[in-house]
Amino acid sequence: MFLKDCWYVAAWSKDVSDGLLPVKIIGQPVVLYRLASGEAIALEDRCVHRLAPLSCGKREGDDLRCMYHGLRFAPDGRCVEIPGQDIIPPIARVYRYPVTEKGGWVWIWPGDPQLADAGLVPDVIGPGNPDWKIITSQIDYDAHADLVIDNLLDFSHLTYVHANSFAADKQWAEKRPKVERIERGLRVSRWLSTAPAMRPALTLYGQPVDTYQTYDFIAPGILTMQIAFCEPGSQKRSDDGPPVDGILRVNGNSQAVTPIDDHKTRYFFGLGSRSADTSDEQVNMIGKVGLAAFTEDRQMIEGQQQIMNISPGVRPMPTNADIAITHFHSIIRELAKQEAARMDGSGTTA
Amino acid sequence: MFLKDCWYVAAWSKDVSDGLLPVKIIGQPVVLYRLASGEAIALEDRCVHRLAPLSCGKREGDDLRCMYHGLRFAPDGRCVEIPGQDIIPPIARVYRYPVTEKGGWVWIWPGDPQLADAGLVPDVIGPGNPDWKIITSQIDYDAHADLVIDNLLDFSHLTYVHANSFAADKQWAEKRPKVERIERGLRVSRWLSTAPAMRPALTLYGQPVDTYQTYDFIAPGILTMQIAFCEPGSQKRSDDGPPVDGILRVNGNSQAVTPIDDHKTRYFFGLGSRSADTSDEQVNMIGKVGLAAFTEDRQMIEGQQQIMNISPGVRPMPTNADIAITHFHSIIRELAKQEAARMDGSGTTA
Amino acid sequence: MFLKDCWYVAAWSKDVSDGLLPVKIIGQPVVLYRLASGEAIALEDRCVHRLAPLSCGKREGDDLRCMYHGLRFAPDGRCVEIPGQDIIPPIARVYRYPVTEKGGWVWIWPGDPQLADAGLVPDVIGPGNPDWKIITSQIDYDAHADLVIDNLLDFSHLTYVHANSFAADKQWAEKRPKVERIERGLRVSRWLSTAPAMRPALTLYGQPVDTYQTYDFIAPGILTMQIAFCEPGSQKRSDDGPPVDGILRVNGNSQAVTPIDDHKTRYFFGLGSRSADTSDEQVNMIGKVGLAAFTEDRQMIEGQQQIMNISPGVRPMPTNADIAITHFHSIIRELAKQEAARMDGSGTTA
Repeated sequence: MFLKDCWYVAAWSKDVSDGLLPVKIIGQPVVLYRLASGEAIALEDRCVHRLAPLSCGKREGDDLRCMYHGLRFAPDGRCVEIPGQDIIPPIARVYRYPVTEKGGWVWIWPGDPQLADAGLVPDVIGPGNPDWKIITSQIDYDAHADLVIDNLLDFSHLTYVHANSFAADKQWAEKRPKVERIERGLRVSRWLSTAPAMRPALTLYGQPVDTYQTYDFIAPGILTMQIAFCEPGSQKRSDDGPPVDGILRVNGNSQAVTPIDDHKTRYFFGLGSRSADTSDEQVNMIGKVGLAAFTEDRQMIEGQQQIMNISPGVRPMPTNADIAITHFHSIIRELAKQEAARMDGSGTTA
Repeated sequence: MFLKDCWYVAAWSKDVSDGLLPVKIIGQPVVLYRLASGEAIALEDRCVHRLAPLSCGKREGDDLRCMYHGLRFAPDGRCVEIPGQDIIPPIARVYRYPVTEKGGWVWIWPGDPQLADAGLVPDVIGPGNPDWKIITSQIDYDAHADLVIDNLLDFSHLTYVHANSFAADKQWAEKRPKVERIERGLRVSRWLSTAPAMRPALTLYGQPVDTYQTYDFIAPGILTMQIAFCEPGSQKRSDDGPPVDGILRVNGNSQAVTPIDDHKTRYFFGLGSRSADTSDEQVNMIGKVGLAAFTEDRQMIEGQQQIMNISPGVRPMPTNADIAITHFHSIIRELAKQEAARMDGSGTTA
Repeated sequence: MFLKDCWYVAAWSKDVSDGLLPVKIIGQPVVLYRLASGEAIALEDRCVHRLAPLSCGKREGDDLRCMYHGLRFAPDGRCVEIPGQDIIPPIARVYRYPVTEKGGWVWIWPGDPQLADAGLVPDVIGPGNPDWKIITSQIDYDAHADLVIDNLLDFSHLTYVHANSFAADKQWAEKRPKVERIERGLRVSRWLSTAPAMRPALTLYGQPVDTYQTYDFIAPGILTMQIAFCEPGSQKRSDDGPPVDGILRVNGNSQAVTPIDDHKTRYFFGLGSRSADTSDEQVNMIGKVGLAAFTEDRQMIEGQQQIMNISPGVRPMPTNADIAITHFHSIIRELAKQEAARMDGSGTTA
């Protein structure tokens, strides 16, 4: 089961427009659109009448008309017209999800709307932030979201899965990062000492660098990363903490894992560099290499899912590379327990 | 579960020939062919020996030979030859379904053959009737038959689903038809007052008309419709009953909903006009517009089915447009109850 | 359920090379490769760490590195490196299947490795045997292995399924073969008297021949056949036993049925003639006609599987052509019972 009391990325803000965008989030059908005011709206994509998809409907001003039998819904989800019927019963409403926008993403909250605090949306590095140049993209996986999350919590895979795309150094696999508990998630940080930088497309440096990577990974599956390529010696001078000098370039990105259902996952990512460090050409290369790398991930993760499907009862064998994974799952279990307790106390959420 | 003691449309008569036509009806595999005499035959499409499809077999005269191991079956279903074996056990027979032909369709009766009264086949408007020019076609839906049936019992959807194809007036959605109980089904009738006619291809009248539509919808899912386009004022002069004068043109059609299984449905339709009212060109246009409209239906109904699949426990909310639907389902439940009572009393049917 | 304590054909020897070949056998994921020494290796295709497919990994010498997080496995299945971790727990090993090669095939034993006696591999007529010219191929079926096995145990289907490809005589259907019990299987033999030979491509004889066919069918599903085309009169002179004179030509082949899982089956076959009897051109024709014939089988068997899928509770009706089928299934049941008894006694096998 998936957490409900949290913000999921539903779509890129740029993809939510006048039109009707159907998405499925943790198994729930949702239709997204934007009011004349520009506000993004997320409604249950299921007419109350005969369960037809409202996303096959039509905008009428800010309202949404089901194009099966013509019921019309206001942006708050209330049915405001049933053709040929005067009385509209109060149960005639579709659920309106709490929505917020931040960092180039439209976020929706499938759980208890009373708890939908926009302040819980993490700070992410997205498009439209003048400090960063960011290339955006997304991929769907035929795999459970947990496998995508686990991939992002153990970057030892860079050396192997991304040998071609990122040309990632062996230190990614051999050195363990520092893992710290933060609010609703983890902070994962590491230095790579005097090693060839990742694929030139990413760094444009031929000579060895000290590399500092740090990312926050927040429930339900939001990653925000900075990666600094520094002059050799920077690590030492920084006493293994964040770099204090010698920074040549800082790349940054945010990634979001949204379960479509138990079998499919949508993976959103914006990749780039600090505007000060990069040209459009360079950031396009970063986007291209990143997409190649995530396609490598998809191939491995979908293969893993297929093996898991035919391996009931076979358990993974954790290594010390799994510390963040193990830790993050216990955070999720804890949040799920709190959520269940709230639901026991107060009836069900939407 | 589907009714068994009733006539289902299995195929268009024109499609049943010398060759072997496999069809699936309420989950049962059936093979259709035509005897030298011209009689249409429906046999269980499953060899008694190792359950191979007889439709992969071969005609030998009026018999049907399974082309796996050569068992030969007479048109009554009896096995008449087992190659290399002298004795043919009496259980070596495939079921022969009661079949009748009417209105351009081959009908089969999957239930108790004792009850298969050809008189129960409704009068339909089909090809070959000199009074009508009819264009025939069929579509398969990835949806349960009930969703197709419900679509046909609530024509308020015309205004929305068929805004493009039929250019249907708003009165379809806003005015409720008269619904009467008839033998094994319902009669649904309505007037539309002085409104633009449907898509010119259907009526060829530019000026507003009074429109009278009436159709019978008979279990398990057979619709026969007439729709009269009349001079304005005809409705009033007819006192809301069938038109007594001013008829400009009468279109007619029959439609049949046959469950393939729980997930797929075959939808047969013959659309046209009274021969007196129409040219070949006009009736071709009617067929073309109708096919476009039913493709609109399919898109909506398959979308509805997909939403229903991920919405266990979510119930439709009836409106006053659903009166015929609700009524028809209670007729089906009643027939199913009678059928179950008969089966309890007399053992199972085929 | 499938037998485990037996040899299954996993692949053609020629297809197992330096690279990694993933196969699925009785539902188990397996990766095949060949050591520098030339020895064929079969490992569980599932990394112990996070269950990624090792077949997405990389050879490093004789070892196999998982390309997800870099665990390295020796050919005996032991994990010999976990990047970034000094201690390798003893449970960090993947299962190595017993493997043997014979007759052009790589065989693997999914059951108790203590019982994996290479002596149990039947003698087959495969490529590389100087006495035979053999053309090899394979087909996957969307059907349970039992249906493919049953097909091979009742050659009365030749007359019907292979009327086109083999132009098989009616005697195949009408005369019952001699069926004898042999170790772990059956021997099936028959004479066809003075009949047109099979498709000229197979025999190159226009005139009628006496045909003697004999094959062994061994658990789990290995067939080895010889078929002698003889001068008319040979059958009589041989007193219905194997031909003693007048042999014009001997074709031979071996066929193996390997369950992929409960729904899919891989079918391997090598078809040909005694080297003394045939030219390369002739044996190419045999391969071509055989592939056409087995494609006919696949069409019938997949049709049969589809009918069976929608016919729960419908049982086949055995004929006297099914003697070998019935007999062979009782052999399999007996072997399964012995296997279950061993497992009860000794814990589970791999």
